[in-house]
Amino acid sequence: MAGDLVLLAAVSLLSAFQQCHFAWLVGKSRMKHKVMPPAVTGAPEFDRTFRAQQNCAEFYPIFLTALWIAGSFFNQELASFLGLMYMFARYKYFHGYVASIKGRLTGFYLNLIVLACLITLGAAGIVNSLLDEYLDFSIGKKLRKLF
Amino acid sequence: MAGDLVLLAAVSLLSAFQQCHFAWLVGKSRMKHKVMPPAVTGAPEFDRTFRAQQNCAEFYPIFLTALWIAGSFFNQELASFLGLMYMFARYKYFHGYVASIKGRLTGFYLNLIVLACLITLGAAGIVNSLLDEYLDFSIGKKLRKLF
Amino acid sequence: MAGDLVLLAAVSLLSAFQQCHFAWLVGKSRMKHKVMPPAVTGAPEFDRTFRAQQNCAEFYPIFLTALWIAGSFFNQELASFLGLMYMFARYKYFHGYVASIKGRLTGFYLNLIVLACLITLGAAGIVNSLLDEYLDFSIGKKLRKLF
Repeated sequence: MAGDLVLLAAVSLLSAFQQCHFAWLVGKSRMKHKVMPPAVTGAPEFDRTFRAQQNCAEFYPIFLTALWIAGSFFNQELASFLGLMYMFARYKYFHGYVASIKGRLTGFYLNLIVLACLITLGAAGIVNSLLDEYLDFSIGKKLRKLF
Repeated sequence: MAGDLVLLAAVSLLSAFQQCHFAWLVGKSRMKHKVMPPAVTGAPEFDRTFRAQQNCAEFYPIFLTALWIAGSFFNQELASFLGLMYMFARYKYFHGYVASIKGRLTGFYLNLIVLACLITLGAAGIVNSLLDEYLDFSIGKKLRKLF
Repeated sequence: MAGDLVLLAAVSLLSAFQQCHFAWLVGKSRMKHKVMPPAVTGAPEFDRTFRAQQNCAEFYPIFLTALWIAGSFFNQELASFLGLMYMFARYKYFHGYVASIKGRLTGFYLNLIVLACLITLGAAGIVNSLLDEYLDFSIGKKLRKLF
């Protein structure tokens, strides 16, 4: 597996690091607003920080699934680029949400668009692969023959 | 990797889409009951919807792990079928929980059964693979020789 | 894929089982303290148990990502051993947190150390693999030639 999927692995590891960073920022916000565990509510800024991180954590396995499938079945370079876009959108979302409730929206919509792209690419790759394997009909190969 | 694990990838992508759908239903429930972020409690129906989605999100990486291991080390077709069953159980669970607290139970127990099957298949596949690799003894090959 | 990454798969399946076990302990704590779903707060001991499980669930995909990348791109045996250490740290964290708020700290710091090791190994493996693929320069091969 190694070697040939290294770009996907690099993006995944960077995003894992980003998730750790978000969790660490929640910890910092706990200190700042004196919200002691196991409490998860307190000052409004802490509440927003906590919810921002929770939302990122919830979507993280969905993102990884879409990233690897799009990268393995469609195109690794394109999927990795979209993965970096997703990380940027999560950065915008997290810091926007910490600043204000409305601030999360730009990053959130960007996230949705990137995730929709990854899922669409993955679905296209899988349909092509299923046709190829079970019906011996590959759209990719047909297209390549045309040019 | 592509090609040969395409069924697992197809089920994973479908389940990723289902997770997004659940998150979207929570958003819709927020609108309906006017529970504005970052609040996560409000009307009882919203609370149930939110908890249903949270439970699905928590178990999602566990499901993916069990699905891919059962599919790679035991049998891809069987694991993919169980994956679809799991998605159906999550559908029952989510909508049952939204309707009433007791409504979640059928789907929840079905989930547990399917997850237990996937983990058991995965464990069987791994034990066979470990025996094969480190002791050069494969139960699978022995069984195939018998028939 | 099977065969050659069987140790990573074994550790992943064990950790998936551990996550299920934590979720089951939350259910048991619900019964003991009569906290009925969808409520997620009640007796202080239940609150700690619930937060402990939530934290484990949040970090689970991050752990899996780091484990598989470190195992595929650096060294499978070392990554699997660190994976078992991580599970032990999560065990300490969970049961420590259930006992008292301060009790979570030992396990928590151990978790961080193990996760940092996995991410570092994974990053080293990816950098080596990228150099090898795009610049045809492999540190691993150079080192092996020296000895």
